[in-house]
Formats: sequence, structure tokens, C-alpha cells
Amino acid sequence: MSGDKRSNLLLLFDRPQEPCFMPKGDNNSVFDVPQDYLPEKYKPVGQVVVSRFGESETGPNPKIPVKRISVPPLDEIQEIRRDENFSLFIPKHRKIAGRLINIFLGVKSVDDLLSVAVYARDRVNPYLFNYALSVALLHRPDTQNLDLPSFIHSFPDKFVDAKVFSEARETATVVPQGNRVPIEIPKDYTASDLEEEHRLAYFREDIGVNLHHWHWHLVYPFEAAREVVNKDRRGELFYYMHQQIMARYNFERLCNKLKRVERFIDWKGEIKEAYFPKLDSQVASRSWPARVAHQKLSNLRREVDQIVVDIDDLERWRDRIFEAINKGVVRDAQGNNVQLTEFEGINVLGNMIESSILSPDRGYYGDMHNMGHVFISYIHDPDHRHLESFGVMGDSTTAMRDPIFYRWHGYIDDIFQKFKSTLPRYTEDQLGYSGITVDEISLESNNAKNNLQTLWQQSDVDLSRGLDFQPRGAVFVRFTHLQHVPFSYNIVVNNSTGGNKEGTCRIFLSPKHDERGNPWLFRDQRNMMVELDKFRVNLKQGRNIIKRASTQSSVTIPFERTFRDLDTNRPTGGDALAQFNFCGCGWPQHMLIPKGTPEGMPCQLFVMISNYADDRVDQDVSGICNDAESFCGIKDRKYPDRRNMGYPFDRQPRDGVNSLQEFLTPNMRVQDVTIKFNNRVFQKAM
Amino acid sequence: MSGDKRSNLLLLFDRPQEPCFMPKGDNNSVFDVPQDYLPEKYKPVGQVVVSRFGESETGPNPKIPVKRISVPPLDEIQEIRRDENFSLFIPKHRKIAGRLINIFLGVKSVDDLLSVAVYARDRVNPYLFNYALSVALLHRPDTQNLDLPSFIHSFPDKFVDAKVFSEARETATVVPQGNRVPIEIPKDYTASDLEEEHRLAYFREDIGVNLHHWHWHLVYPFEAAREVVNKDRRGELFYYMHQQIMARYNFERLCNKLKRVERFIDWKGEIKEAYFPKLDSQVASRSWPARVAHQKLSNLRREVDQIVVDIDDLERWRDRIFEAINKGVVRDAQGNNVQLTEFEGINVLGNMIESSILSPDRGYYGDMHNMGHVFISYIHDPDHRHLESFGVMGDSTTAMRDPIFYRWHGYIDDIFQKFKSTLPRYTEDQLGYSGITVDEISLESNNAKNNLQTLWQQSDVDLSRGLDFQPRGAVFVRFTHLQHVPFSYNIVVNNSTGGNKEGTCRIFLSPKHDERGNPWLFRDQRNMMVELDKFRVNLKQGRNIIKRASTQSSVTIPFERTFRDLDTNRPTGGDALAQFNFCGCGWPQHMLIPKGTPEGMPCQLFVMISNYADDRVDQDVSGICNDAESFCGIKDRKYPDRRNMGYPFDRQPRDGVNSLQEFLTPNMRVQDVTIKFNNRVFQKAM
Repeated sequence: MSGDKRSNLLLLFDRPQEPCFMPKGDNNSVFDVPQDYLPEKYKPVGQVVVSRFGESETGPNPKIPVKRISVPPLDEIQEIRRDENFSLFIPKHRKIAGRLINIFLGVKSVDDLLSVAVYARDRVNPYLFNYALSVALLHRPDTQNLDLPSFIHSFPDKFVDAKVFSEARETATVVPQGNRVPIEIPKDYTASDLEEEHRLAYFREDIGVNLHHWHWHLVYPFEAAREVVNKDRRGELFYYMHQQIMARYNFERLCNKLKRVERFIDWKGEIKEAYFPKLDSQVASRSWPARVAHQKLSNLRREVDQIVVDIDDLERWRDRIFEAINKGVVRDAQGNNVQLTEFEGINVLGNMIESSILSPDRGYYGDMHNMGHVFISYIHDPDHRHLESFGVMGDSTTAMRDPIFYRWHGYIDDIFQKFKSTLPRYTEDQLGYSGITVDEISLESNNAKNNLQTLWQQSDVDLSRGLDFQPRGAVFVRFTHLQHVPFSYNIVVNNSTGGNKEGTCRIFLSPKHDERGNPWLFRDQRNMMVELDKFRVNLKQGRNIIKRASTQSSVTIPFERTFRDLDTNRPTGGDALAQFNFCGCGWPQHMLIPKGTPEGMPCQLFVMISNYADDRVDQDVSGICNDAESFCGIKDRKYPDRRNMGYPFDRQPRDGVNSLQEFLTPNMRVQDVTIKFNNRVFQKAM
Repeated sequence: MSGDKRSNLLLLFDRPQEPCFMPKGDNNSVFDVPQDYLPEKYKPVGQVVVSRFGESETGPNPKIPVKRISVPPLDEIQEIRRDENFSLFIPKHRKIAGRLINIFLGVKSVDDLLSVAVYARDRVNPYLFNYALSVALLHRPDTQNLDLPSFIHSFPDKFVDAKVFSEARETATVVPQGNRVPIEIPKDYTASDLEEEHRLAYFREDIGVNLHHWHWHLVYPFEAAREVVNKDRRGELFYYMHQQIMARYNFERLCNKLKRVERFIDWKGEIKEAYFPKLDSQVASRSWPARVAHQKLSNLRREVDQIVVDIDDLERWRDRIFEAINKGVVRDAQGNNVQLTEFEGINVLGNMIESSILSPDRGYYGDMHNMGHVFISYIHDPDHRHLESFGVMGDSTTAMRDPIFYRWHGYIDDIFQKFKSTLPRYTEDQLGYSGITVDEISLESNNAKNNLQTLWQQSDVDLSRGLDFQPRGAVFVRFTHLQHVPFSYNIVVNNSTGGNKEGTCRIFLSPKHDERGNPWLFRDQRNMMVELDKFRVNLKQGRNIIKRASTQSSVTIPFERTFRDLDTNRPTGGDALAQFNFCGCGWPQHMLIPKGTPEGMPCQLFVMISNYADDRVDQDVSGICNDAESFCGIKDRKYPDRRNMGYPFDRQPRDGVNSLQEFLTPNMRVQDVTIKFNNRVFQKAM
């Protein structure tokens, strides 16, 4: 019974704009909403509308009792209108979300929570409600183990072509359930190949990639209660996760005959890239604003959003950050000097640049990365004269769709790299693992050796739980995404230490040549190194053959997890479900391998076995999902690798090392591989 | 029975995206669609979906038989996809529309027309279908007297805030019919007062104004069968109707403390005005693209629309037009010289500049005004790389919403005025009416003399016939528009000719001062003269008192006609209904009087009695609607005033005349009046 009650809370995520008294979930449950809980507009017709949905064809609908309690006033919360867009980048929105979270956390029992949530649901902004209730359910002790629905199920409009929604309405209205066919989203709907940047749309608009990014920022918020924000090495992870996105994006660009991203450094100049997202906000009933070619940032005077900030502010923050990097010292809010240390400096910088509330002095170093998003997202209406909302850069769910995201993060990453360049270089001693040699590495896929294969795949997802005010029943959309043929690593390691050893196997992939077709200098190639996997290995004496499947990657989660339509690959154990939302974080498995080229893209596979004694973090992680630990860490635990993230490529090379080959110590190895792209579309069961 | 059959055709305008086999009209009729008529996507589930809508709660729905005939292939027509936007400004769209019209005109009987229309309806683009079927019904002899629904009923999305549609869906789904309340559209939803141009939004976004503009261009297409285009003095009416729009807009600007419109003359410079229409196309599932501040035109390479044209082309056309004006001679397609005569030159120029197919040489003088619309409407995506459709300037239904419309037409009008300046000035003889004097003029409204009163009014319109794929039943929206208190003119005319006379009473209104607060020079004020009314008067000997109600205006149609919700003010007589669509053309009565100011805007009322002997056009207009003849002419008849349109203000004044006062002959009179604006919102029953 208690389990039932709690899962009623999840029905509140269903069809977010349909009032609580309308049928929810698979069995058409209706909340028994007290009359005085009805939102104002339904009070005059309360009895009529409530009784209207009490029955369906199969008889009376199951009723979910709602306790009548004294609900705190929501006036402040309602300052964000129901039909607005909502963004955690906007301080005012963040503050209001915090209040609603506190209300949800403050009530005593699950019954009371259900009551106050029902009261709030049809009054407050639906995006805000979803966010605040999600956070509360994740943090209340009495709501652990609940399986929150994927964000795309509540708000599919943030992920798919706006055209889908009228088609879905047509299908749901006209075609009986058994006869429906999936609605196909064209692969190229935001632009054509005439726009060079559109070659990367499959990456930027990938549903799994965007869900990952939303999830990451949900798990690592930059502002919330301190115990939520202050996760182990979160600043460093901010740097590393985004650095890896940049490495991946640049890798994809080379696959598509485009040069690496140009940093967005001239903040008063034109942004040449345009982006037309072609997404509608179903809640705001507004399409996401486009950015046309050659627009410029302006100082922001968005009083309604309580954002008043100049480009000059951004420049001042930048200059202070550089000052800190070059001096190796930051100031804290009390005016004390704090050293940027070799190992932990990057974490401080991450919190400072992002910024999070962990920034040493947010007043002084400002809010650079976040405000960059905000400046860009309001480029079309900087003083709100046109009553326009923010563009896609203003929401972590949609930001990665826009080419400028990568130019902005290219700039941000460059600052981190400038800091990394000030650090002592790794010595051969710090890199090597005496007595351990990697003798051979190879990839195997479909009997092809060292030749990865990519292709287009079509997958279906049911969006009906997010389609408000239309007939029930599944409505699938079919979208096309990159995929690769699964493969495995074969690694031969020799252990001549005379005893059993443990190591961490670190696998990276990089393009073999730069955009001019030249071999890389190490200092450039290191930034192109895409982490594919990282895992612990036991090394017996002598020859060890390590086999590892691509699906086991420490950066990815299975495709199905993203959508949670299937119950596979779900973690088991004590509080498995509690972990599940955390585990939604992770790079999508289907995007593990860059697209490659039809002729076969020459790449370099890098494998290193590091000394586990220097890597290990002592903690119990049993029963905790850790599929994508490299990108997302582990819930309530320390980041599971003691090295700086990105090791061994996070620093400039030691003197004399100019190429990857020269960088190698015996416990590393490089293998030429190719990625061959098959430009055909396959159905899921390939 | 025949009457029934024909009105079944009108059901095809109902819920344009819902297939024919779904219930239509008040009695839920369904078309009995032959299986092989079903669109491809419904063929696999044909029996299921068709039988699904055969019954409603009250029993089987009435079936409308559909004859199975051999339908011509529609492949070419379907080159415009169903989910595209449609525009007559795009030559390719025009051509395809022409073909579909020909198909509809070519079938033999009403039964056959119904059959082919049913077949086409769920295959071709809904906007295109509406347009082609409308034109066909207007022109087929066997479909006269049919009362076509107002365009806003089929496509409300072209007229009202996009937010309305999700609210309407919520209302229709949640609230039973008797309990629904109108959905209110905020008066200011496209921008705020921080944007100066927004002060005019009530004018530009007025539903009646935009319906008029759409209607005008439907009645006076610039390209179609020659007998449709070649209406009496259509080129001159193009000039005059738009000149009056400019006069009215500039008048409104002065009321709002804004200077007159700056012509859009620098085609390679920035357009400083932005416009965010906040309209969604429900058919295309795309919002109408915005134009941000400071964008520039580009050469167009929209191959998909078959539009490849340079700004240089536009400049060449312009220069050739000026060449013609300054020489007083145009060339025709055969290379012959044609004089621009005093009376008919303006008509030639109108057709040339717009341009219509009546242009003397469209190859040489180009397509200037139309292409200006097209250039501006594609400013955000000139080469279609971003797969974007045109902005609001690309559709006559929406163009008047955008501030740039008035800058472009300001430029166009200026060319016409340059031509008018080359014409001989009216002599006192041409202006006077010997023996006729206007002795007194005044306005009376609510017992106030010479003081017009304006206010905000709210009106409701039922949009449910245009709301596809949602539950039935009326859904009203409530919008706020300008209104004035009805008034009447009192005109005292003395006839000392010694006999009965006839005259044309011409009434104009103009602001008294320019934007600097100075009195006008006549040469500027003449362009500010807003025609309020024009009617024939009989003048007996001696003193005549003429009373005329503001609602009788020759430029307006009643508000209700715009929406056709009411059966009032409908013309009677033989082919009354046939005229009805023509009669939808006309300036909305509620916009007859500019807004004025709270303190009372000083204006000048001008009345002239001209000699009817010089004005008269001999024709029978009995039974033909002519409410808005000044703006729209009379269907299938000559323009009912022999003078040049705009007379007596269409030319520069005779020598020695610098002010309006000096311009007057005894048959004219000027009276100071004020327009006082009451900034409150009244419900319809005021």
C-alpha cells in the first residue's frame, strides 16, 4: 500500500498540462481533487469538469485520495507564469525553484507531499513543477527508490521537431491504437547541407546527447542546497565532461571535413553561425527563438528576469580569472589568497568559471560560463522589448543543439587548458608502470580487425505521456541517429613484475591527422583524445589477454536507459531505483564512436595500463550504478579515479615529447584503426 | 436538393486539416469517401478509420454521397507539401494554384466538383486548397450564391496569438460546452512599449485590418486569368487603397507621438525595426519567422521556391520606373512607347509597380512591389539553407502586422506621388462647383460637437471551425480592438444655381499639425488626408442640410461582416450571396477613426461637394453590395467615381496655394475637430 501511494506521485509527471482531475497513467486514475484545490479558472465549473472525467468507457476510473491540508501560499512561486519558459540559468527562476523544492521537502509525510504537489501542479509552471518535484523525490528519504519517468516523456517538445506534435494529434485522433504507425522525424529538418555547420546536426540534435546534458546538469546543479552542489570534484568534472564533449565534437568535425571549432572570443563581434531550432515549447506555446547569421551580443537589461549585466562585466570576470591562473592564486570571499594547487586547482577553477556556489568568490570572479549562455540566449531581445523568451542556449536540455554552444565551450575549455599548461608535466615515472608492458592492442567488430563501422539507425520512442489534451494511447515517433557496430577490445599485457598486479586500463581514441592532413603535435592531439573506456584490470604474472566489449564503456549508458522504455540494464541491489535517475546521466552508447568517413577515417587507438595503486579510491560502490562513471561520477560517492580527470592527456608533455609516439611509456600502446561510415539507414533490429 | 448539394461544398472549408471522413459542420456530416479516394497514409487503415467516424453519440452521422469519378492526377499540385506554408507571392505557388483552380473549374457538374474536391482536399496543401476552391466557387456559374466562410474561420492561426491554440485545446477538452468562457488575447502580446513601434500594434495587428488586406488582394489578384485580374482601374486602386493605408498609419503615428514613416529606401542598409509576430502556422507546424533588429536584405537564391533574384534587379526596375515617370512614357512588351496620360497614367503605373500581369512590360519593369515583399520575407534565410519559410511580409494575410510593411509601402507610395507631381494641377474650375457653397460642417457624437471619442472594445469570435483534431463545440476568443463612438456628419450646403443639382460629398480627415507641432504645408497635408466617406447628394435650391451616419461610410464594412457570424448587413437582392465574398473587402468600421489622444488630438475635417456631372459613372449597381466601394470598387462594375482616386488631394496644388485654407473653393469647407481617446476597455455592449 505504501508503495502504491508513493507511485501515485509519479502520475503527476504524466501529461504535465492536463489538470490532476483528468485521467493519468495506464489505468486512467484520477486524483480526487478537493474543490478548493482546483485552480482558479476551474473553480466556477468545478463540479462539472471533475465529474466529467470520473468515468471512462470501461467504467468509473480509479480514484486517488488527496488529503486536504493547509497548503502554504504559492504566490511567489506563481511569479513564473504557467505559460512561460523556465530556465535554471535565470537567477530569479532558480530562486523560485528553490522555494518550491523547500516546500516539497518540508512536508511531513508522503500523503502530505502528494496533497501539496496536487495543489501546486495545476497552478505553477509545468517545467518548474517537474524540476522541483524531481529534486524533492531524489532527496526525500521517504521517496527513495521511485522510478522517475524520463524527461523526454514529460516534455518531448524539448527534443523533437515541432512538426511531430500536430502529426501526433492527427494520429491519436484519427487512427485507432492498433493501427498506428510511427511518425518519422526527418534526419535533416533544421537546415540543409548548404549550411556547413549542419553536417554536425546529427550530433548536436541527438536526443541521447541532449538528455545526457540535461541529466548531467540535474545531477550537478551549480546552485542549490550546499550538500546537493558540493559533490566530490564537481568543478573538475564540469571541466572534464565538457572538455570531452569538445574533443568529441572536434573529432566529428574532422570526420565531416570541417576544421576544429573556432573559439568564441570576440564578444563584441558578429556571431556568424545561425541556428533555427524548429522546436516549439508546448507549455509556452512559443517556438524557440532562432539566431540569424551575424548577430551581436548586447548588454542585457531583462528586468523581468532580474538580469542586468554588461558585456564589460563578462570581460572583467574573464580578466580576473586569467589573473588568478597566471598568478596561481585565487582570492576567496574573505579576501584571502588560496593557491591553485597541482591536483585540486582545476576543481577550484571549474567551480569559479562555471560558476557554482562553490566558487571561491562569486562576487569577484562572477558567473562567466553561465552568463555566456544567458547573453547568447537573449541575443534577439536583450532588453525584453519584444517579450521574447530565451533561445536554446538558455536551457541545458536544448543548448547542445546550437553550433555556438561549442564555440562558447571551446573558449571555456581553452581557459582550463591555459591553466593546465602551467602545471608540472607528468614525468615518465608518473606515467609508467614498471614491469607492465602493453604488447598488443586491437579492435574486433564483425570479424573486421581495427576497423570500426558506423551507420544510421532508426529508433522509436513513445511520446504520448507528454502529449497534453489529446486522445490516449501510444504514439511513437521514429528518429534517425548515428550508431556503430558493437566491437570489442583485445589487449595483451605482459606483467614481468613477478607478482599479481592491478591496473587501470585507459582507452582513448583520436583522429590520426589534423584538418590539414598533417600528423598531430602532441600538444594538440591530447585535446582530441576521446575517452572510450576506463576499467580496473587484474594482471597475473606473464601474458594477460584482456577482452572488453564496447557496450561496457565507462562513459556511456545503454540507449534504452535514456528512454527507460525497457527494464533492461537496470541496476539491481538495495536502493537500485534510487540510483536510477542518477544513472540516466551518461553519454549515449550509440554516440560512443564518431561517425568516421565512407572511405575510412584514420584514427589512433590509445591504451594505457596505469598503476592502480595510484588510481584507487577506497569506497564501497556495490549496488550503485556506475555505468558512466567517467562522465558522471558515482552517486553520493567519490569520483572513482584518484588521478586528475583526463589523465594522462590533461597536461602538456614532458620536455622532448612532440608526438604521441614519443609520449609513450612501455605501459602504453597506440594502434592505427579506421572508422568506416556506411551512409545507409537501418532499422533497430540490424 | 440542389441547394443542399452545393452547400456540402462549403463543409470542405471546415477544420481544414481533418480528413473528409471526419464529422463536418453543425450536424456532424461525414463525406462517404470512396476507399480509393483516401490519402495514401490512410489507405492501409481505411475501413477502420472511416467506420470510426460514422457514428456519434446521437446515432449514425448523416452521410454525404461522393460520386466516384476519374480524377486528374494531382502530382504537380502536391509539389507544395501539405505541411508547407503557401503564398501567392511565390511564382511557383501561384502557378500550382492556377492549375488546381483550372481543375475545379473544368469539371462538369456540382457533383463532379464535390468529388474532385473531396479527392484533392486531403492530398494537397490546406491553404492552397482553400484558395483554389474559393476562387473556383466564386467563378463557376453553378456555384454562385454560396456563402463562403470567413478566412479566419478556416485559418485562425494567421490572425491571433499562437498561445490561443493550446488554451483552446485545453478548454475544448476539459470544459463542457455550456461552461466555456472566452479565451482572452492580451492587447499587447507581440512586444512592449519599450519598442516605440509597438505603439502601433493595435493598428497593425487588428484582425479586421488584416482580413481587409487579405480580401483586397483576393479580389484584386496580380496574377490569374486575365478576365479576373483586369478589373476596372485596378492599378489605380492598388495605388489608392495603399496610399490610404499609409495616410491612416501616419495619422495613427502622430496620435502616438511618432513621426511619419521613414521610407525604406536604402535596400542595402540595415532595417532597424524588428518584428516578432508570435504567430504559429498550424498547417506548417512552424512559427512565423521573426525579423530581428538591424538585419539586411540579401540576394535571393531560393531554388526550392524558384526565386533567384538580386537586389540589383530591384534597383534596375526602380530606375526604369523612374525613367518612365520622368519621361512620361513607358514601353510595352513590343517595344512601343505608351504615354502616361493625365488620367490613366496612374493606372498603368499601378499595374507596373505592383506588378500585375497588366504591366505594360513585366520583363522590363520587373515585379518591384511584390519582390520587395519577398526580399523582406526571406531576410532570415535568403538561400534556404536553414529550411525556413517566409516571414509575415510574404503573405497578404499577415504582412500588415510588420512595421516594415509601412516603410516599404511608404517608398512605393512616394514613387506614385512623384508621378502625381508631374501632372497638371487642378484649376479652381476643376475643383469648384459654381453656385454651390458649403456653409457649415460639424460632427455630432453622443451630444458632443466636433469631438470624436475613441476607446478600447473587446469582441469575441468563435474559432472552433479552424481548430483541427480537437473536440467539437464553440471556442470563443476575446480580443481587444480600437473603437469609436458612432457619430454623424451635419453638412449645410447652399445651392444658388437656381435649379436642383447633384453632387458628390467627399469627406476627409487629417491631423491639424505635423510631428513638430507646426501647421501643414498643403503639399504634405494632402498625403495625410484620410477618406472617411463619399456619397451622392441631391441639392435642392437654397439651403440643404445633409445628415450622414459614420456607419454608412464608403470605405468600411460592419465589424460583423468581417467575421460573418451575424446575418446582419447582408446585401439583399438577386445574387446577394454571390456578392458576399466580394463584400468581405472593406476597411473595418471600428478602425474608421484614428486613435486620437487622451488630451484630444486636433484634426481638420474636410468636406467638398463636387459636381456629380463630372463624377458620375453610368451603370446599374442595384442589388450589388457597395459598402466599401471607395476601397474595393464594385464587383464586375466600373469604379463608381470618374475622378482620379483621391481627388481633390491626389495632385500638387495650383500655384499660390500653400495651405489647406488657401486650397479651398466655396464648395469646400474645413472644420477643426478633435479625437479624444479614452484609455479604457469596454465590452462589446457599450
